[in-house]
Amino acid sequence: MSKIFVDACFGKETPYTPVWMMRQAGRYLPEYMKVRAEAGNFLNLCHDPKKACEVTLQPVDIVGVDAAILFSDILVIPLEMGMDLKFVTGEGPKFDDPIKDEADLDRLIGGDEAASKLTYVYDTIKLIKEKLADDKALIGFTGAPWTLATYMIEGEGTKTYNICKKMMYSNPELLHKILAKVTEVVKLYMQKQIEAGIDVVQIFDSWAAAIEPSKYDEFSWKYMVEIAEYLKSKYPHIPIIMFPKGIPAFLDKVYGNFEVFGVDWSTPMDLAKEKLGSKYVLQGNMEPCRLYSKEATTESVEAIQKVMGGKRHIFNLGHGILPDVPVENAKHFIKECHRVSKK
Amino acid sequence: MSKIFVDACFGKETPYTPVWMMRQAGRYLPEYMKVRAEAGNFLNLCHDPKKACEVTLQPVDIVGVDAAILFSDILVIPLEMGMDLKFVTGEGPKFDDPIKDEADLDRLIGGDEAASKLTYVYDTIKLIKEKLADDKALIGFTGAPWTLATYMIEGEGTKTYNICKKMMYSNPELLHKILAKVTEVVKLYMQKQIEAGIDVVQIFDSWAAAIEPSKYDEFSWKYMVEIAEYLKSKYPHIPIIMFPKGIPAFLDKVYGNFEVFGVDWSTPMDLAKEKLGSKYVLQGNMEPCRLYSKEATTESVEAIQKVMGGKRHIFNLGHGILPDVPVENAKHFIKECHRVSKK
Repeated sequence: MSKIFVDACFGKETPYTPVWMMRQAGRYLPEYMKVRAEAGNFLNLCHDPKKACEVTLQPVDIVGVDAAILFSDILVIPLEMGMDLKFVTGEGPKFDDPIKDEADLDRLIGGDEAASKLTYVYDTIKLIKEKLADDKALIGFTGAPWTLATYMIEGEGTKTYNICKKMMYSNPELLHKILAKVTEVVKLYMQKQIEAGIDVVQIFDSWAAAIEPSKYDEFSWKYMVEIAEYLKSKYPHIPIIMFPKGIPAFLDKVYGNFEVFGVDWSTPMDLAKEKLGSKYVLQGNMEPCRLYSKEATTESVEAIQKVMGGKRHIFNLGHGILPDVPVENAKHFIKECHRVSKK
Repeated sequence: MSKIFVDACFGKETPYTPVWMMRQAGRYLPEYMKVRAEAGNFLNLCHDPKKACEVTLQPVDIVGVDAAILFSDILVIPLEMGMDLKFVTGEGPKFDDPIKDEADLDRLIGGDEAASKLTYVYDTIKLIKEKLADDKALIGFTGAPWTLATYMIEGEGTKTYNICKKMMYSNPELLHKILAKVTEVVKLYMQKQIEAGIDVVQIFDSWAAAIEPSKYDEFSWKYMVEIAEYLKSKYPHIPIIMFPKGIPAFLDKVYGNFEVFGVDWSTPMDLAKEKLGSKYVLQGNMEPCRLYSKEATTESVEAIQKVMGGKRHIFNLGHGILPDVPVENAKHFIKECHRVSKK
């Protein structure tokens, strides 16, 4: 059965523009909160294929999105490379043993050995594919090497990224070694996600905006492109979505072999269309805080539809949905995307 | 005596391109840390004209910048409007009584009554002007109404701005009332700073990037322009620098009566020059983390000089200097800016 979401990724005509929401399996859903409470904590939920499958499917059933996205966390990669990951309530992820030098990096597991430890992710994918309706797509994902490296070097989320950036400007060789090692694991991790059954790949570079424009390609984009090329050479039928958050200043510099460019909300959709619309299908980009108001949601959906005209487009938010958004407003967003784009 | 910095703000030819650094009176300087320790805490330092004057002058003497910037904090405005400001170590500023509704706003002091309470700022300016060398300029500053309002509504720094943005999309009238009341105070505050002796005004919109492009003018820029127009009509000889951090996607939309546009490091200097260089003098924009390396500093200073060619330009960082930067690297930055631009 043909999946409208996959068709849209390849720029084919579809009866309406499909839509999903970043972080759609998340805290705004009471049903998610219930399963998460049963799991005890966030990492347990990632490690439990049955529960991870359940929360992956919730937004498809409850909110009506056109694609499910695998429930997991980008930091399972450094975790299985051997780093000590904790989620501290109210503070986010922490590694007690950040990478400070080459010896720290050498201690980490790489390549297929690390990727093979993520069996709970592949098991989750298989379970989801048994239960997901045939016309819905399953998106698998990974963090970009740069975004993963920021946590591995800083040891936690950061406002200034000063430790990684000190490395970037004072010891770029070490940063490149870290990025290369992570890239190898990501390639094999995504290959195994595809083998387990995902229909689409999304690579999230959540901290793209932390790198100055003249250094972005060197320290992030080229590694993302390397991953995309590797997967495309083996699985040309699996579309790839690249989402580098916050690079509106240099869209001209975007290159590589992938199908969909994810537009964040800081980038005007008409600018993205002008710079990238002929090369890539565009995904996005409603400002997630508009979900607090149905009127503001409709206004934005109509404005985006006016720019994209229902062609080479996938609706989404320009970043993740926030925990305090009313579920009925999320449903309204999905309904409006379908309404304005129906042919 | 003519001040090279003021001349440069007006686009006049100068013997070299002047330079200062955002947050130049700050924690990277041991001399600052000493005065701050004596003051007991950050707010005491803002309230003490003698000590505030001392730290304002330190970077001029120690690092060799061409302009001093008044030592103060943007949040003294809501403080003197009647809000309960605390600086919690390691967590930043907090207001225990954020604005939730119109009654909260009505309780705040506005206009000249609030601006008149900031005597310690005006006294600091007078003291600085007595001691600052005649050829150096003193920059006074304020936060933009939007940036101030985010703290007044959220009660603290925020990653998601979800409380203000809920207001933006669900109750924009209330947000506009808050912004208008803050704008009135800011106009009179800056007027009194000018009367006390500052040579240049900078308006910092540190959280410009929190607003989606299509709403930026409505909720921030137009208020900044209103303040600039008010000051220009009374003090045409005082140059105004606007610094909206993180709006590279829509530089075309920048308008208003002011002299200098502050370019943050996420905006490539050649893009800023192309879009705004003929209308405004440009200030900026080295990525502050380059200060960790002298080589990376020189590389960036030379690249910026190559774009700007020593014309209609003021050197600066693209954001504030970080606390762990070696003082000798800051000195190197200043020296390099002077070296590459000397005529």
